[in-house]
Amino acid sequence: MLEKNELTVGRYLFNCLNSEGISEIFGVPGDYNFTLLDNLEKYERIKFVNCRNELNTGYAADSYARIKGLSAMITTFGVGELNACNAIAGAYSEYVPVIHIVGAPKTMLQMEHRKMHHTLMNGDYSVYENMYKNITEYTAVITKDNAEIEIPTAIAKAKEMKRPVYLVIAIDVVNQPVTKREVSLSKPQTNQNSLQLALNNIKQVISKAQKPLLLPDIMVSRYNLQAVVEQLANKLDIPVSTMMMGKGSFNEGHKNYIGLYAGRWGSLEVKDFVESCDCILAIGPIWSDYNTASFTAKLNPVNIIEIQPSYVKVGMNLYENVLMEDLLNELVKVLDRKSTPVPNIKLPYTENQVGDGNNQVSSVYYYPKLQSFIKENDIVIVESGSLPLGMAQVKLPNNVSYICQYGWGSIGYATPAGFGACVAARDRRVVIFTGDGAIHLTAQELSSMIYNGCKPVIFLINNKYYTIEAYLNTPKTTNYNNIPVWDFQKLLEAFGGNAYTARVNTNTELDEAIRQIAIQGKDKMCFIEINTDKMDAPGIVHNVHTMIEEMEKQQMS
Amino acid sequence: MLEKNELTVGRYLFNCLNSEGISEIFGVPGDYNFTLLDNLEKYERIKFVNCRNELNTGYAADSYARIKGLSAMITTFGVGELNACNAIAGAYSEYVPVIHIVGAPKTMLQMEHRKMHHTLMNGDYSVYENMYKNITEYTAVITKDNAEIEIPTAIAKAKEMKRPVYLVIAIDVVNQPVTKREVSLSKPQTNQNSLQLALNNIKQVISKAQKPLLLPDIMVSRYNLQAVVEQLANKLDIPVSTMMMGKGSFNEGHKNYIGLYAGRWGSLEVKDFVESCDCILAIGPIWSDYNTASFTAKLNPVNIIEIQPSYVKVGMNLYENVLMEDLLNELVKVLDRKSTPVPNIKLPYTENQVGDGNNQVSSVYYYPKLQSFIKENDIVIVESGSLPLGMAQVKLPNNVSYICQYGWGSIGYATPAGFGACVAARDRRVVIFTGDGAIHLTAQELSSMIYNGCKPVIFLINNKYYTIEAYLNTPKTTNYNNIPVWDFQKLLEAFGGNAYTARVNTNTELDEAIRQIAIQGKDKMCFIEINTDKMDAPGIVHNVHTMIEEMEKQQMS
Repeated sequence: MLEKNELTVGRYLFNCLNSEGISEIFGVPGDYNFTLLDNLEKYERIKFVNCRNELNTGYAADSYARIKGLSAMITTFGVGELNACNAIAGAYSEYVPVIHIVGAPKTMLQMEHRKMHHTLMNGDYSVYENMYKNITEYTAVITKDNAEIEIPTAIAKAKEMKRPVYLVIAIDVVNQPVTKREVSLSKPQTNQNSLQLALNNIKQVISKAQKPLLLPDIMVSRYNLQAVVEQLANKLDIPVSTMMMGKGSFNEGHKNYIGLYAGRWGSLEVKDFVESCDCILAIGPIWSDYNTASFTAKLNPVNIIEIQPSYVKVGMNLYENVLMEDLLNELVKVLDRKSTPVPNIKLPYTENQVGDGNNQVSSVYYYPKLQSFIKENDIVIVESGSLPLGMAQVKLPNNVSYICQYGWGSIGYATPAGFGACVAARDRRVVIFTGDGAIHLTAQELSSMIYNGCKPVIFLINNKYYTIEAYLNTPKTTNYNNIPVWDFQKLLEAFGGNAYTARVNTNTELDEAIRQIAIQGKDKMCFIEINTDKMDAPGIVHNVHTMIEEMEKQQMS
Repeated sequence: MLEKNELTVGRYLFNCLNSEGISEIFGVPGDYNFTLLDNLEKYERIKFVNCRNELNTGYAADSYARIKGLSAMITTFGVGELNACNAIAGAYSEYVPVIHIVGAPKTMLQMEHRKMHHTLMNGDYSVYENMYKNITEYTAVITKDNAEIEIPTAIAKAKEMKRPVYLVIAIDVVNQPVTKREVSLSKPQTNQNSLQLALNNIKQVISKAQKPLLLPDIMVSRYNLQAVVEQLANKLDIPVSTMMMGKGSFNEGHKNYIGLYAGRWGSLEVKDFVESCDCILAIGPIWSDYNTASFTAKLNPVNIIEIQPSYVKVGMNLYENVLMEDLLNELVKVLDRKSTPVPNIKLPYTENQVGDGNNQVSSVYYYPKLQSFIKENDIVIVESGSLPLGMAQVKLPNNVSYICQYGWGSIGYATPAGFGACVAARDRRVVIFTGDGAIHLTAQELSSMIYNGCKPVIFLINNKYYTIEAYLNTPKTTNYNNIPVWDFQKLLEAFGGNAYTARVNTNTELDEAIRQIAIQGKDKMCFIEINTDKMDAPGIVHNVHTMIEEMEKQQMS
């Protein structure tokens, strides 16, 4: 029995999470996590937020972490946790720190290798942790004796590496008194010698450069370093571009911003300019296929200064143990003004785009329209598919949180992620862009939004097809990309929604719907269905397809 | 380029699957499985069946395999396949042979460790296969050179062990010509010496027994041996009982059937009788927690003849390499008639149960009613939760396929499994029993049923709560078990359904709905929502709760 005022493992865990700013934990109840949830229900400073399933829980926790820096979720052993594998692998791939906590069978039953429900019936209780080792930074089985070591260690790893971690806690352990431990976690430190050498090298390279360019990418937003990067842009006064995954890492209203660099997919003007630069100061990039437009963003490695979370490469020189934050803070101090002309490149979506009001609405019309709809401080959630390509060219106002799982690219992410964002920032407007193919996978999380009184604005591009799949393949038309047609207004009603809904078929109807959002969106969710032609897609998607066809032809010849 | 009439890897794969009786493959398109799906679309003898997400795909494939003996599903690398982990682990836990085929990035990109979308961005292409090794019987990376070895091997393993297997095929490999191989797969064989020794021992034990009992369990239905087991029951003429997971392994209309043996959860009359028997001929049992009613089904191992797929234990004697089918066939021949009185135990749901028509419908009324609704040759799908407990006591007519994921116990299984069953057996009636808590997880598969013209009868117990969770815990009432209330009629309309729907609140209304099913169910799906009190549950669930409270008290004292 517990002595009065004695700290239990469960309460200790919640204290640790709460001290990191976590005020909500997502999850789904299951009989192996009852003690976790019973305790959480009594815990004053964290609210438990039910999701409709564990995949959606993982996505909600992912976007919560992108906004608040860290998140936590609770699932049950086997059946629950394994539903979240995709979401956790996505968090790993995209550098998002999620603490996945799993409630497990009683310690004694595990030790006796009992054939319990939710097991593989082989007495092996390490199977799921073994699976999760592949897609998390750290895993641990929590006991009362190791809790004060393992829990802070896991949280520290998640925060340092921006990766998900996995903790499994037997149902009986949660209520046990935690054993007091003195833990001193060693935080990674910058090696001052390396830092100085790197600084000197960078200073020298930049001073010699004729055409330098700043290229902030994914790690800037993951490490929340947008402010110092903007200072650097101000200080240097050189052109700034971003790649797909850099969206949200730089203030696109900045006078030096020249737009998206997406190799042969994007603006050739930007491509030509960027590739003519003799010094690319790339901050936290990922050189992945989509981020480099299928490796057509071709930059000469010799010209790149690549600043990564714990090292920096200056051309062919590598400096290890240099933390990104420390280096950027120093760079702002030591680099001299290097004013370089910023080319006057027109961004793709001009704000005054006009189309005939009675025309069927299409991407040519709605992207510019949505661009002007997005306001400062919005949280913008973008589904995988053609939307990230189209949205990448939207010029965002300042302080917009742009959330898109673009590297991992799992369709269905946006709806639960939108729910997570609503929970993370109740005072900010959440705008979700999704498609009908994608929303099918995770649609039940609309119900969670309604149940929790969330009021996002949702734009659903309804093309009644897996359109992006068609563009990524040759030939374009196949039966397997057909999808059932849903009535989304009825779907929201089924979930009990008091929502403003509109079905938009023409440009004028989109204008009207956007006007209504301003009025009705104050006290309800808005759901705007934009009905487009099956093969309607922004120009950048056509560019992607053209490239695929060219590659196909090359291989055939 | 392919020579004329040359067999590709893809076509070879589909030939192998089709020769096992697979005429449908479930899946979700993704850009790494395009060549698989393009080829499948051209393949005459197998139809591709889209599901709304990959978890649901896995569940649909699971129930298809339970009905047809084997199934296959296609997902895409990373994002797709990881969504199905829970379903595949469930198939492993429950001995269901599913072939999970994953489309992967081009071989060359993998060899170059490129950072492709849907990867962890670490160049490691073995991560997901490593994960799946934990929850499948066999995994292989298919190449043109190993396809004629690995594909038949994987299929054979799945069939022999009744477990899922995992094949990953790079997108470029699918269209390559398969290298001709001579494969001779060694099938497991019964050791004739062991068989004889076992037969003699069993014969001797049974002949000495005063009170023998036949106890067919899960492996009987998994190995499709119901017929020989019934022959054995006829030959011996002794009482027959089943445990929870044995449901569907024995014809419950048989004159020797005495009902469900579920330890302290079930009928104490059955318990007392079974535990007084001096010889239990248990065929393919799993001694798991739920199957043994939290280990309260206490049988003396000395009295048990335990026939498993590849061995048999007679008391303390073990005979290895004896195949269940061979042993049962021999037992039918060599065992003598052992007629033993069958106790007259009343089954829980008498068919003429009458309640006041205006009373709120409750489990006391609806279980007997549903019992009489189920007809010979139906496929009955039962969701996890309180339903398997209540349904376990329903007396089934002959030739009913009873599908319940009772050991794995993942809520949400029933709806996609119902879809899989409809696809597997278009000429049989599929009756799905689910609950509102569970259907939330996978509700979009109702859309697939409607899209594919399936006409199941769905009974949804709507208690607006995770009721089973409340009964499995102390105290019973907690906020985290609250769930959003959905309007299921609108949900079906949202999915485009032309369904007969009814909301049943009273006993009379249930009677009327059942009458309507007979009329309207001929050409449409029927969806009957049974609105019960939040804490309504069958007696067996109350027994479970009582036991949990007793255990809790013991631990506190």
